[in-house]
Amino acid sequence: MAFQGKKLINDPNDVVTEFIEGLVETYPGLQFLDGFPEVKVVLRADVSSSTYDKVAIISGGGSGHEPAHAGFVGEGMLTAAICGDVFASPPVDSILAGIRAVTGPMGCLLIVKNYTGDRLNFGLAAEQAKSEGYKVETVIVGDDCALPPPRGIAGRRGLAGTILVHKVAGAAAAAGLSLAEVAAEAKCASEMVGTMGVALSVCTLPGQVTSDRLGPGKMELGLGIHGEPGAALADIQPVDVVVSHVLNQILSPETNYVPITRGNRVVLMINGLGATPVMELMIASGKAVPKLQLEHGLAVDRVYTGSFMTSLDMAGFSISIMKADETILQRLDAATKAPSWPVGVDGNHPPAKIPVPVPPSLSRKSDESFSRPPQLNQQGQILEAAIEAAANAVINIRDILNEWDGKVGDGDCGSTMYRGASAILEDLKNYPLNDAAETVNEIGSSIRRVMGGTSGSLYNIFCKAAYAQLTASSQSVVTAKQCEMILLML
Amino acid sequence: MAFQGKKLINDPNDVVTEFIEGLVETYPGLQFLDGFPEVKVVLRADVSSSTYDKVAIISGGGSGHEPAHAGFVGEGMLTAAICGDVFASPPVDSILAGIRAVTGPMGCLLIVKNYTGDRLNFGLAAEQAKSEGYKVETVIVGDDCALPPPRGIAGRRGLAGTILVHKVAGAAAAAGLSLAEVAAEAKCASEMVGTMGVALSVCTLPGQVTSDRLGPGKMELGLGIHGEPGAALADIQPVDVVVSHVLNQILSPETNYVPITRGNRVVLMINGLGATPVMELMIASGKAVPKLQLEHGLAVDRVYTGSFMTSLDMAGFSISIMKADETILQRLDAATKAPSWPVGVDGNHPPAKIPVPVPPSLSRKSDESFSRPPQLNQQGQILEAAIEAAANAVINIRDILNEWDGKVGDGDCGSTMYRGASAILEDLKNYPLNDAAETVNEIGSSIRRVMGGTSGSLYNIFCKAAYAQLTASSQSVVTAKQCEMILLML
Repeated sequence: MAFQGKKLINDPNDVVTEFIEGLVETYPGLQFLDGFPEVKVVLRADVSSSTYDKVAIISGGGSGHEPAHAGFVGEGMLTAAICGDVFASPPVDSILAGIRAVTGPMGCLLIVKNYTGDRLNFGLAAEQAKSEGYKVETVIVGDDCALPPPRGIAGRRGLAGTILVHKVAGAAAAAGLSLAEVAAEAKCASEMVGTMGVALSVCTLPGQVTSDRLGPGKMELGLGIHGEPGAALADIQPVDVVVSHVLNQILSPETNYVPITRGNRVVLMINGLGATPVMELMIASGKAVPKLQLEHGLAVDRVYTGSFMTSLDMAGFSISIMKADETILQRLDAATKAPSWPVGVDGNHPPAKIPVPVPPSLSRKSDESFSRPPQLNQQGQILEAAIEAAANAVINIRDILNEWDGKVGDGDCGSTMYRGASAILEDLKNYPLNDAAETVNEIGSSIRRVMGGTSGSLYNIFCKAAYAQLTASSQSVVTAKQCEMILLML
Repeated sequence: MAFQGKKLINDPNDVVTEFIEGLVETYPGLQFLDGFPEVKVVLRADVSSSTYDKVAIISGGGSGHEPAHAGFVGEGMLTAAICGDVFASPPVDSILAGIRAVTGPMGCLLIVKNYTGDRLNFGLAAEQAKSEGYKVETVIVGDDCALPPPRGIAGRRGLAGTILVHKVAGAAAAAGLSLAEVAAEAKCASEMVGTMGVALSVCTLPGQVTSDRLGPGKMELGLGIHGEPGAALADIQPVDVVVSHVLNQILSPETNYVPITRGNRVVLMINGLGATPVMELMIASGKAVPKLQLEHGLAVDRVYTGSFMTSLDMAGFSISIMKADETILQRLDAATKAPSWPVGVDGNHPPAKIPVPVPPSLSRKSDESFSRPPQLNQQGQILEAAIEAAANAVINIRDILNEWDGKVGDGDCGSTMYRGASAILEDLKNYPLNDAAETVNEIGSSIRRVMGGTSGSLYNIFCKAAYAQLTASSQSVVTAKQCEMILLML
């Protein structure tokens, strides 16, 4: 059964215009060439066709892929982005308006994702612009690796790899290269990149109902970015497995979609499809890098993780891999003012993650350490049994506590307590059990080490207070009351 | 009924560690202080406590708010971020490890969101660090404006406004200020900001089921960022209405949460909660700015739109408004290498959006224009009736075409054709109907203006072909066959 998707929008027909209005409010470097309602073009505010002395880089297509393409407009990347309606190629006049607004004597390069509508409309606009005297070149990007070759005359779909082509072309143009040179670099880059996606949900078009194509527990592999069904439907797997599958598919020597072989250098893009949290994208990146290095024998020079080319509110991600040489790396690293290009990614990557050692002061100093006495006195035996029983009791009620906590909080109280109790059981063999005060202090250490949250903090404070009371009373044996207190703490 | 949420993760217990692994693979300027599994700290790779000559800025808390806080580590913003488990405050030892790793002789400022667990754990860590000889100050941020005052000793929750406080403190520290000065600026900033959120969905904790608290067609106002229920449940409204409500709530003179009055300068942050597409966030920004200007009499100096402080995969956004003066603007605009701080936002904002005029070449040149002849000949009358009938036929089948297209595509074919047919009907009164060739050409213009997508392109090509054929045959009247072709086109 299809259902009504939820969106924070106004009139579904106005989403693209209103998106651009917010975009230009956010980024003062962008301008809206606004021929309402048909012409929806985002321009660099600092470029005018009459004075621009670089090759203009123009891209665009249907909307619904934000931040693509308008978020990539800026010095060093796109000069203009032509925005169609949601998932609809922009009209020819809109493309022409963009070309006329930013193209100077150096000409313009149109970077077009390989879809019939985009090829037709950008193609017609290019012909018209040429007839008006503009120098125009076009590069088509088809980086999809999901569908088996041959793909006939339609060819492969343009996906997130297009963003990397934008960056290469934009940097080449900013470096002052000619239109032919910029087009050649963009074409070369477009042939070096392969992309494949995985989705957990189907996107909802503004004002329309959501398909229930994807059932619970299912994911689609090899999807398009317009809600097209994926190449395969599968049960959800750990992301580790999903990443392996997608990498194998992109790099398959059988399809030979990208000319990447062992020993090559590559860049990796993990691209969220609109509703995927950064946490999940980063987890995918963290798994993809060692797989590329160890299983595929590739050096991973750059990693771009974020939501670059989305599909409205689709949950999932795509992976793009581009073969990189010095020129491509230089173009990708070049400075840009495009607001949605990731920062802090350039610079040479360490060969592997090097965990910073925990500072020595964190480890227990040996002269302060306590250990289990060779022989437990009666007091020690009672204390050990009591601690063990209490910790096991806490461990046994984990699920009940989580359930209770779920009614009023985030449902993790039992898990937090479980971690503390487990650590106490583990450390119990080293507690100075004949000395109740020091044992309480050690319980505090165990708790402080593993228990976060408010409860961890509270138990830690209890332990400190109990320790203070016990040491102040100079007792080496615990009273019944104090024993009770220790158990209450647990 | 609760349902199993879908996530692209591995073991739910490892999400935070695996997130950090991906983060440091993506950003070579960040390092993972990895005392697995308890210590999870992200550090600036270029800072060492032994040599650092600036005040260290440390924040953190429970995870699940990515990119907060680890994505804001970098020169000019945070020096370290302490990551707890999902929605759980980090243990004291983890915070201490972070303090020890980056704090030099200038000391450190802890910026803590106002939650009991964070206050306890960061507070205990601060006391411990002081006893080890570190200079430590703490600023608590409670920017929530959803719940009515008084809030008792618990105070207001810390929300996305905390990110702005990070930026102010980080820039002040980078400028070389003393700990007392940095703390004073951070405290002042924390008192200038108010935040309130709205959610369309409840977040799913890794490995847990999703609450069905929010039914279809409903939204929650004044939510927390840990899945806490919102202050109010309401039917989904257009985002325009939602934005108005939230702004009124934050700026309410009754609660007096933020010291902002008419004539003040402010900065605006629209913060996605994890699963909200950029398109929807930008639409909210585009609506909030004019409302702040016109309805609240405020100058909006900066707009930050993106996902900064999320709540796992929650759909919705929060709005933060901070009173800005020259110092705060300077701190917000200062350069930073923190990867998740938005770029391209600084610089003075134009007082209002200035639409770029459509270039003159786009408008029809007057000497080329055609108009309806004063008197239609028989040919013209037939053509007019035929065009009108065909266009109306297309208009009437919009919904059926959309439905058919929904089976194989994105369900907008009918709407696209409708736009074309409507434009033709509108322009019909100006077509040179006695001249069939020029009329066809004008139909092409109407279509090119409004129809995007593949169909727009195809019709445009048909019109060009028909025009070429008609003019080549030098006929001023159309043949039956040609008339049929025109109708087929429509």
